[in-house]
Amino acid sequence: MEEKKHVMMSDNKKQWIKIIRANLTPPSLRDNSADVDRLISWIKKELGTKDVEMDFSFVRKIPGLLRKHQYRLKPVLYKKQSSWDLIDILSPQENETIFGLAMDLGTTTIVLRLLDLMKGDLKDEISFNNPQIEIGQDILTRIHYAGQEGGLERLQGIVIDRLNREISGLIQKHGIGRDSIVGMVGAGNTTMTHLFLGLDPFSICREPYAPAINSPGQIKAKKLGIEINPGAPILMLPSVGSYFGGDLIAGILASGINNQEEVSILVDVGTNAEVVIGNRDWLMACAGAAGPALEGGVAGMGMMAGPGVINMVNISPDTRELSIKTIGDNPPMGICGSGLIDLVAQLFLAGMIDLRGKFAPKNCNDYMRNIDGIKHFVVVRSQESATGKPLTLSQPEIDSLMRSKAAMYTILTTITNTAGIAWKEISNFYIAGTFGLYIDPKSAITIGMIPDLPLTTYKPLGNTSLAGAQKVLMSSDTRNEAKNIRDRITYIELNVNQEFMNNFSAAKFIPHTDRGLFPSVREYTF
Amino acid sequence: MEEKKHVMMSDNKKQWIKIIRANLTPPSLRDNSADVDRLISWIKKELGTKDVEMDFSFVRKIPGLLRKHQYRLKPVLYKKQSSWDLIDILSPQENETIFGLAMDLGTTTIVLRLLDLMKGDLKDEISFNNPQIEIGQDILTRIHYAGQEGGLERLQGIVIDRLNREISGLIQKHGIGRDSIVGMVGAGNTTMTHLFLGLDPFSICREPYAPAINSPGQIKAKKLGIEINPGAPILMLPSVGSYFGGDLIAGILASGINNQEEVSILVDVGTNAEVVIGNRDWLMACAGAAGPALEGGVAGMGMMAGPGVINMVNISPDTRELSIKTIGDNPPMGICGSGLIDLVAQLFLAGMIDLRGKFAPKNCNDYMRNIDGIKHFVVVRSQESATGKPLTLSQPEIDSLMRSKAAMYTILTTITNTAGIAWKEISNFYIAGTFGLYIDPKSAITIGMIPDLPLTTYKPLGNTSLAGAQKVLMSSDTRNEAKNIRDRITYIELNVNQEFMNNFSAAKFIPHTDRGLFPSVREYTF
Repeated sequence: MEEKKHVMMSDNKKQWIKIIRANLTPPSLRDNSADVDRLISWIKKELGTKDVEMDFSFVRKIPGLLRKHQYRLKPVLYKKQSSWDLIDILSPQENETIFGLAMDLGTTTIVLRLLDLMKGDLKDEISFNNPQIEIGQDILTRIHYAGQEGGLERLQGIVIDRLNREISGLIQKHGIGRDSIVGMVGAGNTTMTHLFLGLDPFSICREPYAPAINSPGQIKAKKLGIEINPGAPILMLPSVGSYFGGDLIAGILASGINNQEEVSILVDVGTNAEVVIGNRDWLMACAGAAGPALEGGVAGMGMMAGPGVINMVNISPDTRELSIKTIGDNPPMGICGSGLIDLVAQLFLAGMIDLRGKFAPKNCNDYMRNIDGIKHFVVVRSQESATGKPLTLSQPEIDSLMRSKAAMYTILTTITNTAGIAWKEISNFYIAGTFGLYIDPKSAITIGMIPDLPLTTYKPLGNTSLAGAQKVLMSSDTRNEAKNIRDRITYIELNVNQEFMNNFSAAKFIPHTDRGLFPSVREYTF
Repeated sequence: MEEKKHVMMSDNKKQWIKIIRANLTPPSLRDNSADVDRLISWIKKELGTKDVEMDFSFVRKIPGLLRKHQYRLKPVLYKKQSSWDLIDILSPQENETIFGLAMDLGTTTIVLRLLDLMKGDLKDEISFNNPQIEIGQDILTRIHYAGQEGGLERLQGIVIDRLNREISGLIQKHGIGRDSIVGMVGAGNTTMTHLFLGLDPFSICREPYAPAINSPGQIKAKKLGIEINPGAPILMLPSVGSYFGGDLIAGILASGINNQEEVSILVDVGTNAEVVIGNRDWLMACAGAAGPALEGGVAGMGMMAGPGVINMVNISPDTRELSIKTIGDNPPMGICGSGLIDLVAQLFLAGMIDLRGKFAPKNCNDYMRNIDGIKHFVVVRSQESATGKPLTLSQPEIDSLMRSKAAMYTILTTITNTAGIAWKEISNFYIAGTFGLYIDPKSAITIGMIPDLPLTTYKPLGNTSLAGAQKVLMSSDTRNEAKNIRDRITYIELNVNQEFMNNFSAAKFIPHTDRGLFPSVREYTF
């Protein structure tokens, strides 16, 4: 953080939002240029720009403010494409700093960061459920709802209302003025971005999948009803298309692969797996349905990471004794995606499932249970479970995970093949999201979900949506870079052809039919 | 007009406001870029610009409009400093043209022109009194009134209301849509511009005479309450300072002296005489109190030009018989500035006043009358007068005109001396305003108000405020040129020092103490 802060401070030439101290010479007979022109000239000189714009309401205020404060004021401005726009004018007495908000506008969770724009400090971070969940858990339900009478307005309204409530909370907690929050950058998928802006997402999920907008400009807070400084710009990071949103652009910015010489991969796993490969010279991306299994969504006991959720599993290869670890060491109540991957990897290494992912009952001892004619593996018995019920994994659930992991590997194979890049040329394999923080790359390699690269290649990045949004909030260069990425990225439509299906079928084994691809994975010999 | 029209049509690359036909390819799987981005890309390509801005309300409308009209629309845009801004989007069916308004925002009279922006045609011109007259005839009264509670709002309000009424009339008369008026350019003095924009003119008349603003930007109609297309830009031409307003910048643009190789002078006579000298390489300006005499304001019978107003006077040098001509040949009811100049010139040539401007009673026959001990010259006897009273010119009124004409000549002398230009180097002597249309340069030379140049040098230009505003409305190059003029003009403060006073004293004779300066003026020998 310290180093980052330093970069921000010294690089203030590149700030997207700036506060400047204008100490103007009061007019005299020798120089009696007009008040507004006098201030604009100063700003132009100070910012080295030819073009400063302002809402006309400021023009009315400036002469009075200048005279009141002896020609000393603190204008706050933000950079547009080729000009600077006035956000507000603070009086010279005001010593308070200016703040900005970075937002990860997730389908499920919204995370908001309050940042000191002058020091670059993180002041606070809060997260809360996207209130649109009450209308629909998934994107398609919300798109459908938006098409109904008043639906779009309601979807937008409840998010804006909730954000305003949370912003009010931050303002009170930190004792800052509403007007001192002078900018906001958000990143979300294309649908969430549309709903936030009140744009109809109708065409996003319909051929030819052309959204209403990919590159929303900088919109003033008052236009969106966000209750911060009314002149503050709100910027949603641009999307590449319906299935490649601003959250991924934020991910690329956060990972920095767009600035590196070596070739890296960035993977964001959700309902869709989104993959970017490239370096500072080229970028290629694709997205594909990897299935919700990787987020823990398929298992009956599957949950999002949280207290009491199993995130690590170990099975002793000798005794076939299973041990688990939960987040916060709370009593177990479910399993998250990374826990599930651990579990399946451990089951394979202990010979309790075979290379097709099928249970080998003879090795499963008394972990095996038959419920309604379907084989279940008891991970936690009812006595130890926080729910009072056993936590189990069924054969169909493993089958589902096998398809998901196969899809993931096939997508990775396809994009690297298309780019003509061999696995060994990958210097960094970034994993975005909470998933990346918990996943054990060794387990993911074991089940053949990700390639058998040195473990140090794998780097979890955490919330890259938020980190990318924050970077843009802090620098207009990064904002431009977001636009550049959008323009230069090559989006590969995953063509589900015979070759894809062949690759997919070969990847549906643990770790793979081509064992040469996974030299580090120890084979269990039945 | 025809030639001008042609220039406008062929030069449409330089239009300030443009309508373009967008025929977009509908999205397909091969090109599924977003709707708004698709339209913006087309506009950028069509206009050759990197930056297109639009109010966020358009972003919400565009996807629906595009789909409704099969991806064919007609966006209307105007050029800002370094970007284009969307005014409106017309549907492809609409065959109507777009219109603009040019306005001369005079202290006394407002003139409005309705122009077809596509063909460059003048559709209509109307003029009406500035309704602020009811608050105060002169500028200072209005500035004072603006400082009172609610005064500024009222001064602005009555002008905007009256304009809206007149615009409504134009719309009805020509059967055009309100939204088809997509731009407006006005020119006025600095105070009128401030009052129109609702800006406090307080400091204009107080040392150090720094106005609130000199260069108002382009303001959207809805922000000012002007009832044309709400997104239409309204531009008031920039001022150089408190005493050199946008009307003068318009005058320079209308005269074209800023583009000519030869040196010209532009004079605008009002309560102040405003003078510009220069060519395409340099421009110098000054303004001075020439007194209201030149506008007919000092004489008891003085009036603005209009029906029944004496605008030409002749006195036979042999018989000393006086004959007059009135505007419209109506019965005489007063005299305008040009008529007054004619009268005094003729009185001098007939030996009825001497070189000091004093009556020579022995030569005035029965035209002379003594009223309250003051000598009066009867121009029209009560029997012939439309008012039933005699129209007379008193000695003090002549004295006042002598001071005004001396001030005018001294100002001209001062600015040419400062510029180092001799009279004979002046190729064009442009006279702006109604005054210029009626004045007989020969009479003005005779009384020594303007230099003794060949008569063809003097060129009346009519309403240059309006002509200049119209030029800017038609071309963003001219708009930029207005800004250039503002920035490169050297404004000379008329220093009323000993030299000025000496020149002034010498100019208080007819035509001048230095007769060599006026070789063409025939001297009367008493």
